[in-house]
Amino acid sequence: MENSVHLPEPAIRRLPWYLSYAKLALEKGETTISSTQIAFAIGVDSSVVAKDLSYIDVAGKTRVGYNTFTLIEVLETFLGFTKSHPAFLFGVGRLGGALLQDNGLRQFGLEIIAAFDVKYELAGTNINHIPIHHFDNMCELRRKTGVDIAVLTVPINRAQEVADFLIEVNFKAIWNFTPIRIKVPDHIVVQNTSIYAHLAVMYNRLEQLKNE
Amino acid sequence: MENSVHLPEPAIRRLPWYLSYAKLALEKGETTISSTQIAFAIGVDSSVVAKDLSYIDVAGKTRVGYNTFTLIEVLETFLGFTKSHPAFLFGVGRLGGALLQDNGLRQFGLEIIAAFDVKYELAGTNINHIPIHHFDNMCELRRKTGVDIAVLTVPINRAQEVADFLIEVNFKAIWNFTPIRIKVPDHIVVQNTSIYAHLAVMYNRLEQLKNE
Repeated sequence: MENSVHLPEPAIRRLPWYLSYAKLALEKGETTISSTQIAFAIGVDSSVVAKDLSYIDVAGKTRVGYNTFTLIEVLETFLGFTKSHPAFLFGVGRLGGALLQDNGLRQFGLEIIAAFDVKYELAGTNINHIPIHHFDNMCELRRKTGVDIAVLTVPINRAQEVADFLIEVNFKAIWNFTPIRIKVPDHIVVQNTSIYAHLAVMYNRLEQLKNE
Repeated sequence: MENSVHLPEPAIRRLPWYLSYAKLALEKGETTISSTQIAFAIGVDSSVVAKDLSYIDVAGKTRVGYNTFTLIEVLETFLGFTKSHPAFLFGVGRLGGALLQDNGLRQFGLEIIAAFDVKYELAGTNINHIPIHHFDNMCELRRKTGVDIAVLTVPINRAQEVADFLIEVNFKAIWNFTPIRIKVPDHIVVQNTSIYAHLAVMYNRLEQLKNE
């Protein structure tokens, strides 16, 4: 069953690493893998791997480890990657446009079925076969489709107001790619994915290397 | 001076939020802002904001707060966003192609000056005016340009070997967008940005909402 267990967020974020590693192992013909192997390959402590995997419903035998194929299936299902989760994207600017181009999202279960922008000249066009509509038509399309996941790529000065509006019309999850943090009620799921914040960390660590 | 202080990673990741908020405040004509204001607006504890800002060299007056314009300047410089950091991108697939389209990276100081792939048919083409070369020509171009930041968007079964090679030829930082964790020596800066792991967290939390 998908996602029925409450895992700590860091654990959930590690599971896709194990999944990727299991896929590689299967490619190489390794029909069983142990948590120790996974741990060594990706540089995470093996007790952490074992504990993370204990949360999900996969039977592993001591010493022998997990059946690789089963582990892949169980992880993919648990992580929700095998199901299609329809979503709307808001803000077809640089980053929004780039995300529409990324078919990888679909491979991980996210199906952006429509994008919205306030620019009238964008309405009626499409990127990577995903139709772009004017924001004014959003509520109607939402009623027809029942989509409850929003990908937020609007300019920062619109992020909070768009988020507020989306919550008002009953979106349940917001994947926030804007570099500003949005405030939402407790019952709304938010993931803040500011890739630019990672850049800042990288620059900082690089600068320190140079100063060493 | 840029990045001369060793901040904990979570603190560095929060600073871009404060920067975005300060930019919004300036747009609205607010010439001073306090850490309390920032804290309230983005939903972070105000003692955290004050502590984070204490690391960087910005003079704030009690009660009055910071000069908004100065705060923006100091944060942008500290975070390395005002400087151009040249980088190479490896793997012009779905995600790699999407990142090449995202001019937002340049706004945050990352200048991808060339992209590389092993597909011969891609060599000589470009995306968004960024030239794509065959991987074989990389070392020569690296010697000419001195680039030491790599953006990694290769398939997962190539991630570790490409990373190993990049380190061998003296790259100092790897921004890893692949969903697999790569192992690197301590002196190499790595940021793992698997946007798909965030999807897994979002699905999990959504599923739990439905089960409540």
